[in-house]
Amino acid sequence: MKKWVYAFNSKKTDGNRDQKDLLGGKGANLAEMSALGLPVPPGLTITTEACIDYYKQGKKINNDIKEQVKSEIKNLEQMLGKKFGDDKNPLLVSIRSGARVSMPGMMDTVLNLGLNDKAVEGLALLTENPRFAWDSYRRFIQMFSDVVMQIDSDLMEHELEHMKKSKGVNNDTDLNADDLKKLVDIFKSIVQKETGFPFPQDPTEQLWLSIGAVFGSWNNNRAMDYRNHYGYSHEWGTAVNVQSMVFGNMGNDCATGVCFTRNPSTGERALYGEYLVNAQGEDVVAGIRTPAPIDDNNRNDSNRHEKSLKEIMPKAYSELVEIYNKLENHYKDMQDMEFTIEKNKFYMLQTRNGKRTTLAAIKIAVDLVNEKLITKDEAILRVRPDDLNQLLHPRLDPNAKRHTLAKGLPASPGAAVGRICLTPEKALEYKNAKDKALLVRLETSPEDLAGMIAAEGILTARGGMTSHAAVVARGMGKPCVSGCGALHVDYKAKSATIDGKNYKEGDWLTIDGGTGEVIEGKVPTIEAGISDDFAVFMKWADDTRKLRIRTNADTPHDATVAIQFGAEGIGLCRTEHMFFANDRILAVREMIFAENTPDREKALAKLLPFQRDDFIGIFRAMNDKPVNIRLLDPPLHEFLPHEKHEKEDLAKALGITVQAVDLRIEGLHEFNPMLGHRGCRLAITYPEIYKMQVRAIIEAAIQVSDEGIKVHPEIMIPLVISKAELAILRKDVIEVSEECLKKAGKKIPYKVGTMIEIPRAALTAAEIATEADFFSFGTNDLTQTTLGASRDDAGKFLPIYVEKGALVADPFVNIDETGVGILVKMATTEGRKSNPKIHVGICGEHGGDPKSIEFCHRTGLDYVSCSPFRVPIARLAAAQASIKEKQNNK
Amino acid sequence: MKKWVYAFNSKKTDGNRDQKDLLGGKGANLAEMSALGLPVPPGLTITTEACIDYYKQGKKINNDIKEQVKSEIKNLEQMLGKKFGDDKNPLLVSIRSGARVSMPGMMDTVLNLGLNDKAVEGLALLTENPRFAWDSYRRFIQMFSDVVMQIDSDLMEHELEHMKKSKGVNNDTDLNADDLKKLVDIFKSIVQKETGFPFPQDPTEQLWLSIGAVFGSWNNNRAMDYRNHYGYSHEWGTAVNVQSMVFGNMGNDCATGVCFTRNPSTGERALYGEYLVNAQGEDVVAGIRTPAPIDDNNRNDSNRHEKSLKEIMPKAYSELVEIYNKLENHYKDMQDMEFTIEKNKFYMLQTRNGKRTTLAAIKIAVDLVNEKLITKDEAILRVRPDDLNQLLHPRLDPNAKRHTLAKGLPASPGAAVGRICLTPEKALEYKNAKDKALLVRLETSPEDLAGMIAAEGILTARGGMTSHAAVVARGMGKPCVSGCGALHVDYKAKSATIDGKNYKEGDWLTIDGGTGEVIEGKVPTIEAGISDDFAVFMKWADDTRKLRIRTNADTPHDATVAIQFGAEGIGLCRTEHMFFANDRILAVREMIFAENTPDREKALAKLLPFQRDDFIGIFRAMNDKPVNIRLLDPPLHEFLPHEKHEKEDLAKALGITVQAVDLRIEGLHEFNPMLGHRGCRLAITYPEIYKMQVRAIIEAAIQVSDEGIKVHPEIMIPLVISKAELAILRKDVIEVSEECLKKAGKKIPYKVGTMIEIPRAALTAAEIATEADFFSFGTNDLTQTTLGASRDDAGKFLPIYVEKGALVADPFVNIDETGVGILVKMATTEGRKSNPKIHVGICGEHGGDPKSIEFCHRTGLDYVSCSPFRVPIARLAAAQASIKEKQNNK
Repeated sequence: MKKWVYAFNSKKTDGNRDQKDLLGGKGANLAEMSALGLPVPPGLTITTEACIDYYKQGKKINNDIKEQVKSEIKNLEQMLGKKFGDDKNPLLVSIRSGARVSMPGMMDTVLNLGLNDKAVEGLALLTENPRFAWDSYRRFIQMFSDVVMQIDSDLMEHELEHMKKSKGVNNDTDLNADDLKKLVDIFKSIVQKETGFPFPQDPTEQLWLSIGAVFGSWNNNRAMDYRNHYGYSHEWGTAVNVQSMVFGNMGNDCATGVCFTRNPSTGERALYGEYLVNAQGEDVVAGIRTPAPIDDNNRNDSNRHEKSLKEIMPKAYSELVEIYNKLENHYKDMQDMEFTIEKNKFYMLQTRNGKRTTLAAIKIAVDLVNEKLITKDEAILRVRPDDLNQLLHPRLDPNAKRHTLAKGLPASPGAAVGRICLTPEKALEYKNAKDKALLVRLETSPEDLAGMIAAEGILTARGGMTSHAAVVARGMGKPCVSGCGALHVDYKAKSATIDGKNYKEGDWLTIDGGTGEVIEGKVPTIEAGISDDFAVFMKWADDTRKLRIRTNADTPHDATVAIQFGAEGIGLCRTEHMFFANDRILAVREMIFAENTPDREKALAKLLPFQRDDFIGIFRAMNDKPVNIRLLDPPLHEFLPHEKHEKEDLAKALGITVQAVDLRIEGLHEFNPMLGHRGCRLAITYPEIYKMQVRAIIEAAIQVSDEGIKVHPEIMIPLVISKAELAILRKDVIEVSEECLKKAGKKIPYKVGTMIEIPRAALTAAEIATEADFFSFGTNDLTQTTLGASRDDAGKFLPIYVEKGALVADPFVNIDETGVGILVKMATTEGRKSNPKIHVGICGEHGGDPKSIEFCHRTGLDYVSCSPFRVPIARLAAAQASIKEKQNNK
Repeated sequence: MKKWVYAFNSKKTDGNRDQKDLLGGKGANLAEMSALGLPVPPGLTITTEACIDYYKQGKKINNDIKEQVKSEIKNLEQMLGKKFGDDKNPLLVSIRSGARVSMPGMMDTVLNLGLNDKAVEGLALLTENPRFAWDSYRRFIQMFSDVVMQIDSDLMEHELEHMKKSKGVNNDTDLNADDLKKLVDIFKSIVQKETGFPFPQDPTEQLWLSIGAVFGSWNNNRAMDYRNHYGYSHEWGTAVNVQSMVFGNMGNDCATGVCFTRNPSTGERALYGEYLVNAQGEDVVAGIRTPAPIDDNNRNDSNRHEKSLKEIMPKAYSELVEIYNKLENHYKDMQDMEFTIEKNKFYMLQTRNGKRTTLAAIKIAVDLVNEKLITKDEAILRVRPDDLNQLLHPRLDPNAKRHTLAKGLPASPGAAVGRICLTPEKALEYKNAKDKALLVRLETSPEDLAGMIAAEGILTARGGMTSHAAVVARGMGKPCVSGCGALHVDYKAKSATIDGKNYKEGDWLTIDGGTGEVIEGKVPTIEAGISDDFAVFMKWADDTRKLRIRTNADTPHDATVAIQFGAEGIGLCRTEHMFFANDRILAVREMIFAENTPDREKALAKLLPFQRDDFIGIFRAMNDKPVNIRLLDPPLHEFLPHEKHEKEDLAKALGITVQAVDLRIEGLHEFNPMLGHRGCRLAITYPEIYKMQVRAIIEAAIQVSDEGIKVHPEIMIPLVISKAELAILRKDVIEVSEECLKKAGKKIPYKVGTMIEIPRAALTAAEIATEADFFSFGTNDLTQTTLGASRDDAGKFLPIYVEKGALVADPFVNIDETGVGILVKMATTEGRKSNPKIHVGICGEHGGDPKSIEFCHRTGLDYVSCSPFRVPIARLAAAQASIKEKQNNK
């Protein structure tokens, strides 16, 4: 019989940490900790395969699985001397999801399962604590009703509030056993009314229903959103962990806490955690009470006066310290641990690699190498390239005036400036309108995920450093300030009060996730400074990678930024943006309207000095590094005037009527501009356009070379579809270049090559390569043509394609390896065969996407080119690709 | 040393007819005739390789070539006892171009070369005919000045006219020796004035200059246009034939003529020709004098009263008859011969396979098989598939009222209706405006070629059945009436008078090239009848071909026409045209505007009965043959209203305002509709659209099958880019189909497959094939995406691409074998590997293009599909492809 269930306990542990795909992260780590001899409450893990089977059976748990679960429950009963549903010593278990990757709060959990009308009495007797027993039963019914029976949670919440009100108390803890017993009755009658059946008393029935509900929660909307956001497969399924309960809420000798082995914000090597006395684990995460610090090192403004764990439970604290060292040595990574202390006995409930800010990730990786726990290669693989974004994006200008309204917890570093949005929907609305949103909430929950993704940053009134908002924001690299007590949110009035001052939705607000500051209005930001660890880390990456990293930059400013980020050259300098500048657009339009070559040449002559200056600026900025310049690419109608006064200016300059201008504009209209008269097609019909640009490039190169800079211009001809076409244009380029150089009496090496961005160019690359010094894959256009999908129009169907699985990912984000990728491979291989010296790179936006960069490495390209801010990301992704290849070749 | 020069004379002939690529058609045939012992004036051929070398040397003739020519000229002098430039018995030669294919009148010719101030005296003495000698010299200078020295021909023409006027005569022949001598002096002074040098007296210098000029004429504009039109390579080069002169213009015992061995209009087996007494060959072709008939069989309205060659030169006539039989037996094809009779001695100047109408080509091919001269395979190769157009296109409705204005010669059969255009430019203008042009000229010359291509038909006032207009028109399959004496053209007044009635440019006129009639206004036309020979010929083709031929038809009428033309099924039935019909467009628009699935389904339900009736009609028409139906393809915005009243109707139907309608229309706008939300993307987002169509197809199939017809529906899903996408849609199709069939209790075999029209589909064909019963290459869209060129917009650059050689041909006409073709091959091979049963065809317009059909045959497709009128063309092209493959495999 297939093994569906894996036990973990001090006697027998079936799984280990390498079985994350099968047991989920939580299950694999529970097994690993059990095997390590750590104090883990015993339990069992139902595999992810069982989840897949559950869906295959039409949402039914098959009998084999049930048998195996039952058998392991029996073992548990024997081991613990407890019995399911027993009126003396009942076995209580928790039911938790656990996928192969952590999806915090996305799926469902049921605690205290096993309680019923009899067992609750047993628990009261055993613990000598009827209040605790009835509170546990009350919580169980509430959770089970919500998660398993999908009863509106407000119904019971309302009764709870009502009870507190009628008793004149504020906290749940102020209700006594009788109150809670009454509540249990009320809750049970709600269940009867809502479902037509009494609350299930059979613990085994409770178990099957809960396991099914957890499997079911794999496909709830927020879990799907989360997976879509992170690109995780919907096919994986979740495991289910059934674990005997321990209680942090049995009295003041009980506690529960969450702790990181290193600081997840900074990476500092020291315990970082919070705990609550007499509480269950969910209480810490939910942020309902502000937790106390683990030790003095963890004190902050909001917990300054709480007693630390070290102070009140020194034995448990020292156990925690011991375990933390053990786990780090074992896992060789920073751990995120959950623990519970039941009557002074310490239990580990979970460990997993802790989420961290990128700053922390880099420091931890570098420290772990220095501590000789991991290799440099391992360190390089520890940081998600995309996460470097966090380091590269702006922080608040320290010199700017700021009016700080309040201070919350510095939950996720970075500055965010946006308009106040009180709902995720509003945040999405602003985002879609290309405006900036700041999500302001009492506290966040997984339902808010889409809004958190849309927002620049997150501000919450409640919750600690490990609250939902904090954890998720750090994972995303979004600035977050949590637990800001001075913030009051009125969802109904659509306003927020901060320190007594009222703000409406849409008002601007700034937060600094590094300090916890909440600041009025828009504060100017500046670029991020970069740590020493970062420099060390990136040096390791640079030493490892094979791909060269260039940048797409059209201006000296962009070029300078990119060099600071480590760019080794320009892979794509577009020349069309230059045409739009105010001082030249009229000449551009005269050129377009010219009816013959001499007129066109006259207009182009006006543009020449401007273009030359553009290139001089860029050559200077790039100082000795190669600069790849793409000749004019867009269709000419993009440069035409739309405004009346522009048309009048043009008409005047040309000595024609505005009507005539309109007529010509109409004549230049295209049905599918993407597939129209653009790219080098302009130069086949009007050779003088490219000739002017080449002259500008070479004359600029001559001038800058006179300043002592070694210039390496690369002249790129876009949209080529045939060898003959490229040969015609290459001849023009060389003629003009040689003429300029001869006149100046200089020798400057320059290259002439082409974009490969049309399928035919890729298909005939062997021929084209004989006329090209380099290929640069323009994967934006290559994706559009290979998939027959216009990027501007695909928004209407691509998301649905990804949702329905008709495409595995958005091909404009991750290169479409099975389609576009085949062409890239083919062209690279065939091009090199006929021209072994050819230099091959990529300049589409995929050049900054880690997955695509890995593809480029595997395909053997020479370089990738991306936007300046993505250069570090590309450097790291290239290094990781190189390491992964080494590992695969072992 | 490389052999650049091939001699042909009665003693030694170096070449033969198989060397057309090297010697040109004329040279190869002169060699062949010489070797056959026919009376050919001796000469030599300079190879096409010499022409290529000439261009390579920067338009210089290399010394090796000159040496070889000189040596052969010496042989000629010895053989004929004449000497270059001799004052007693000068050797005179003609210099003629000759490419591997006939390009009538496209390149230059120089006659009477060798004459100079001394030789003219020798010629006068020798012939005892000073008038002839001076006339020859006069002609030589005129031709040489025009062709070699590029002096404006009007200058000398003007002097000739002036001389005639001052002498009070009408014809050149009325000028005497002295007049001509004076003209020679005048001409020589024009040369001195225009070039700064005297007219060259050295025959060898004359020779080199003339040879260079003929080589140069290979690349004149009209030759380039001609080659572009017929798709001939510009790389071939022309040979040059230097041949000793014989004179048809030495007196009344001299003549010159042109003769076909069979009737080029009907194919009838009988000499078909014209001649002129006392004339040079060019006089017949130029159509300046109306020629006399070869024999009684060649009499027509305009030459009824002329004496035939048989009557006045019976010996020469019987020599001609003998030669004609010899040549047909030798060449096994109808010949087009040029002959000259010099003082009663018969000379063959040229033979070549004669151009003919398609009607004639088919009759000749069938006759030659019956005469056992050629095989059926050879016969099939004798007809250019495109030429079948001539047989398939309309002729005048015999029952229509017609006012015949005049009668000319029935030079090329078929009816043409168009607006009078007096210049080729005007004809092009109408053609470009999608209007119909009829080119009306005094006579045509090679400069008119572009206009002839643009025109529906050609009408000339002068010229015989072998005039330029007649020969070229027959070659193109264009209706032509030549030599219409009642026609007077006034280029200046832009009007034409026919039988005294005045017509302006732009007025409508009709011609019948089969009868020679010129008819007022627009006469209705009907489809062509098809001859018995045609049926026999096509039966041979059908027995030979491997490709099946289907048709693209959207209506029962088209389907019926296609079946009459031999279609074996429908390869593409588009369903979008059906959506535009008046009775359903409103429902279509309601469907588009639906905001949810139920509303969309409601609108679609209204369309269902219409669609079902459409398919019932087509299934009935196709009677047992397979019908491939493409589900909806265009973007929905194509169906939106543009007119105000349509918008109002829609607003009313939907209960919304016209402004709301406008807003929705704006929302559906796409930047690149070709790459937008269309094809099966519509069904991924709105599955109910295809479901309705599938229901209509299957319900129609059920109903027609109840009528006893075996229906073979094939359901085609367009624009597929991934296997997963097709799998989703195929599942829908099968579900709906099975539901309909189950309900009806019927079993009807149906196929589900896809278009391959996006590069990604071709690249992933191996995967896609596992979900498809068939592939149909949509090469229109596949060409657009593979080349990144929108057909609607490419008009601005594609012609220039072909002109500059950046592409070898218009890829929308001939399939782009090196680009698109690679994808077609790849998809076919890979698709068959993973699904050996897959059926593969093509339904783009290339399916009707013979070159592309040959490619499809070579690639191993199962069928091609084309428009109904191209079905016979495709049948023949497929047969030829099959034969060529057999020949290549030998």
